[in-house]
Amino acid sequence: MSDLPVAQVLERVDANLDGSVERLFDLLRIPSVSTDPAFADDVQRAARWMADELAGLGFEAAVRPTTGHPMVVAHHPGPGGPEVPHLLYYGHYDVQPADPLELWDSGPFEPVLVDAERGKRIVARGAVDDKGQVMTWVEAFRAWRDVHGTLPCRVTVLLEGEEECGSPSLDPFVEANAAELKADACIVCDTGMWDVDQPAITYSLRGLVYQEVTVRGPSRDLHSGMYGGVVVNPLNLLARILGELHDADGRVQIPQFYDDVVPVGANEKAQWEALGYDEREAMEDIGLVSADGGEKGYSAIERQWARPTCDVNGILGGYVGDGAKTVIAREAMAKISCRLVPDQDPHAVSANLKKFITDRLPDGYTATFVDLDSGGSPAIRVPTDSPYLNAARQGLAEVFGKEAYLIGTGGSIPAVGSIRKYLGIDSILLGFGLEDDRVHSPNEKFELVCFHNGIRSNAAVLARMAEIVKRKG
Amino acid sequence: MSDLPVAQVLERVDANLDGSVERLFDLLRIPSVSTDPAFADDVQRAARWMADELAGLGFEAAVRPTTGHPMVVAHHPGPGGPEVPHLLYYGHYDVQPADPLELWDSGPFEPVLVDAERGKRIVARGAVDDKGQVMTWVEAFRAWRDVHGTLPCRVTVLLEGEEECGSPSLDPFVEANAAELKADACIVCDTGMWDVDQPAITYSLRGLVYQEVTVRGPSRDLHSGMYGGVVVNPLNLLARILGELHDADGRVQIPQFYDDVVPVGANEKAQWEALGYDEREAMEDIGLVSADGGEKGYSAIERQWARPTCDVNGILGGYVGDGAKTVIAREAMAKISCRLVPDQDPHAVSANLKKFITDRLPDGYTATFVDLDSGGSPAIRVPTDSPYLNAARQGLAEVFGKEAYLIGTGGSIPAVGSIRKYLGIDSILLGFGLEDDRVHSPNEKFELVCFHNGIRSNAAVLARMAEIVKRKG
Repeated sequence: MSDLPVAQVLERVDANLDGSVERLFDLLRIPSVSTDPAFADDVQRAARWMADELAGLGFEAAVRPTTGHPMVVAHHPGPGGPEVPHLLYYGHYDVQPADPLELWDSGPFEPVLVDAERGKRIVARGAVDDKGQVMTWVEAFRAWRDVHGTLPCRVTVLLEGEEECGSPSLDPFVEANAAELKADACIVCDTGMWDVDQPAITYSLRGLVYQEVTVRGPSRDLHSGMYGGVVVNPLNLLARILGELHDADGRVQIPQFYDDVVPVGANEKAQWEALGYDEREAMEDIGLVSADGGEKGYSAIERQWARPTCDVNGILGGYVGDGAKTVIAREAMAKISCRLVPDQDPHAVSANLKKFITDRLPDGYTATFVDLDSGGSPAIRVPTDSPYLNAARQGLAEVFGKEAYLIGTGGSIPAVGSIRKYLGIDSILLGFGLEDDRVHSPNEKFELVCFHNGIRSNAAVLARMAEIVKRKG
Repeated sequence: MSDLPVAQVLERVDANLDGSVERLFDLLRIPSVSTDPAFADDVQRAARWMADELAGLGFEAAVRPTTGHPMVVAHHPGPGGPEVPHLLYYGHYDVQPADPLELWDSGPFEPVLVDAERGKRIVARGAVDDKGQVMTWVEAFRAWRDVHGTLPCRVTVLLEGEEECGSPSLDPFVEANAAELKADACIVCDTGMWDVDQPAITYSLRGLVYQEVTVRGPSRDLHSGMYGGVVVNPLNLLARILGELHDADGRVQIPQFYDDVVPVGANEKAQWEALGYDEREAMEDIGLVSADGGEKGYSAIERQWARPTCDVNGILGGYVGDGAKTVIAREAMAKISCRLVPDQDPHAVSANLKKFITDRLPDGYTATFVDLDSGGSPAIRVPTDSPYLNAARQGLAEVFGKEAYLIGTGGSIPAVGSIRKYLGIDSILLGFGLEDDRVHSPNEKFELVCFHNGIRSNAAVLARMAEIVKRKG
C-alpha cells in the first residue's frame, strides 16, 4: 500500500468546497464554549455532531464520557494490511467564550462568508481555532473516501472538548486509553502558516503555567482616610509584587526561572532570521509603534518562540464601578501565566512563582492560589528529521509549489505533550491559520483559501504518509 | 439671650430616644448612594425627607437643585434678636455604595438594632456616615423645640448629597449662596470620638486627590501565546507603575510630593503621644498583626493624621471571571487617591501623579485620566482657641464629665475647606463615631450610646453657644 492516486482526490476536494463550507458552518453554529457551564449542552451537541460526521465517513465513532466534557474517539481501518501506517489525528471541538460580544460585526455563532483582501473569509468563533482546522482533515478524509472508497492509511481520531479550559481530562483519558490510541505518528491542525502562500510546519511550542492569586490583608475593607498610610494596602502590595516580576530589561525575576532554559542554537537563529519576519509591520497590525517591548537583547520572533514569559492576564481589586470610593480593599486578585520553553519544568516554575509572591508579603498578609493549568504543560520540540514530518513537507510542497518553513510558535498545545508522554509518539503540527485570524478575539476568521488549501494539503499528506510504509516494506 | 435652661432639654432627649432611632431608621431605609446613577431617585428622596423633617421643626427648608444631586438648605431664626449667634450646620445625606453585599449580615438599607459588647448598635449603610451623625443635631433641635418652643441660637442647615462622590457641586453652591449661608461658625458632625467614653474635637483633616487612570497599549486583546514576551502587557505595565509609587521605606515617589509638607511640631507630637493610642490593639481590630505598615519612621497616629498617602482604591484589567483565559488585555484601569497634609497643593499633587504615570509609558502606550475629586481638597487645620470651639468643649464636658481631646483625623471633609474659603468661617468638628464603625465597609454601625450621647452633646453645645453672645453683649 498505497498506490491509490491523489490527483482525483484533490479534484474532488475542489469540486466539493461549497459542501465543505456548509458542513463547517453547521459545526460553527453550535456554541460549544467549554469554560462556561451555561454552554455544557452545546459542548455535548458538538461532540455528537463530530461523532456522527465521522461515522458517516465509515469510522467506528463514539462520544466517550470523561469527568468533564466528552472526548470523541473514532477509528478507520484504512485499506487494510499490517504494513499500513497508523495516524492519530488530534483536534478540539470546543471554543473560547465570544465576549466582548459588542465588538463582533456579526453573531459569533452565526458564521458568514465575508469579502476581504484575500478573497472570502469565514467569520465565527471557532472558524480557525479549532473547528475550521479540524474540518480540513475531516473533509480530506471525505474526498479520499468519495474517490477511492477508503482512506490510504489507518486513522484514529481523538477530539477533545476542553482545550480552551486547560484540558483537565486529556491526560487521564490518553493514559487510560493508550493501547487504543497508540499510532505511528500524530497529526495536529491547530497552528498557523507563515503567510497565506507559504505553508509551515511548527516544530516548537511553548509550555504553560497558569495561577490565580488572591492577596489578603485586613479582615475587612477600610476607609482610606482612617487607614491610609497606616496599613499596607493589599492593592498597592499586589501591584508592587507584580511589578517586581520583571526587571528593567524585561527579564523575569522568579527565582531559577532561566536555569533550565535551553539557549537557541546559532543555526536555528540564522534560520529564523532568514524568514524575514517584519517586526514593525506585525506591531502596526496590533496598533503598536515598536517591537522593542519585552525582554531586551532578543528579536521579537525569538521572544515569541524561544523565550519564557510572565504575563498578568487579569487583575481585580477594590472599587471598580463608576466614580470614587475612598476604600482600602481587604484583598486583590490576579491571574498570572508563564509561557515556558525547553527545558523549564512547569511544576518548578509554578512553585517558584508562588514563593516569589509569598516571600514579598508583610506579616499578617496571606496569598492563596488557584491552579488553573492542571499542573501546567512543558514546552515541546518535535524532531525535524522523522519520515512522518518529511511526508508532511512533501504533501505541502505539492499543494503550494514551495517548501514549508519549519517554525516555532509562542502558543501551547498541551495535547502534544500528553501524546508524547503516554503514547510515545511525536506530533506533526500542520496548520493553516494566519497571524491576523483574531484567535480568541472578536471577529475570529479563517480565510476561505486557507480552509481550501488545508483540505488539499491534508489529502496530499495522507498519500505521502501511505508511501512511508511502501518504502519500509 | 439665652437663658433657656438645658437640663429639661437633656431629659427630653433621653425620654425620646426610641423616637429618635425610629426617625433615623426611616432615613437609613433610603438607599441614597450618590456615586451610582441607578440610585438617583433615592438620593432625591433622601433630600426631600431631610427638608420635610426640618420643616416639621419650624425651619424654612427647601431642596435646592444643583447640576448634580440637590442641596438641602434650611433656616431657623432661633429666639430672635441681633445678638443671637448664628450657627451653620453642615452634613451629608448621601452614602457610599453598599457592595460587597454578600459580606453584610443584614440588608444594608434595612437598619437593625443589634446587641453587642457596648450595648445596642445601629447597623446599616450610613448609620454613622453621615445620616446618624446628622440626626444627632436634628434630634437635639427637636428636643430644644419640644421643651422651649424654639432653638437657643439662630441656625442654618446645609446638607449635601454628593459628599461620597467628591462634592462636585459644593464649591459653586456655597460660593453662589455665600450671603445666605454666612454664619458665625460652622458645626460639622462627621468625625469620631477618642473612644466610647472619651469625647473629641477634630482640629486637623487631611485633604484628597482622586484620579482614575486607564493605560492602553495594543489596539485589541491579544493571545498570550502569540504576543506574550513580544509586546509590553498593559496589566504588567500598570502594576509596575503602581508598584513604583512607593519606595522600600513606604515613601511616596511622586515628584515634589513632600516639598510642601509641614512637619509636625514637637509640642503637637508630645500631645499625640500622651493620648496613649494602642497601635497593636487598633491593628488587631482589623485583623492585622503589626502597625509597621506604611511609611517608616513615623508612629501609626502620625501616619494617619499628619503624613500624606497614595493608595490604589480599585484596579481592573483583563479576564477576571472563573477559570483561565490566555489573554493579553489591551488596557487596564486603576483608581488612585492621595490623602494630603498641610501645605500640599492638590492641583500640584494631581499633576505630578499624572506625570509620574505618563513618564513611565513605553512608546505607543497611552494613559487617560478621569478626575474624580473636582479638583481635590487641601488639608485643613482649625484654630483651637476660638470661643465657638471652647463652647463646644464645655458642652461635651457637661455630657461626658470629662474634657474632650483635641485630635486629628486621616479623613477628608472637603466642605470644611469650602466653608472656610467662601464664607470665611471655621468649622467645629464634633463627631460621635468610633474607630471600629466600619465606615465605607459592610456592616457599618453606630453605637446606640454614641447616637444618644451625640444628641445630648449637640443639645448642650447649643446652650453654650448661645452664651457666647451673652458674654459678648
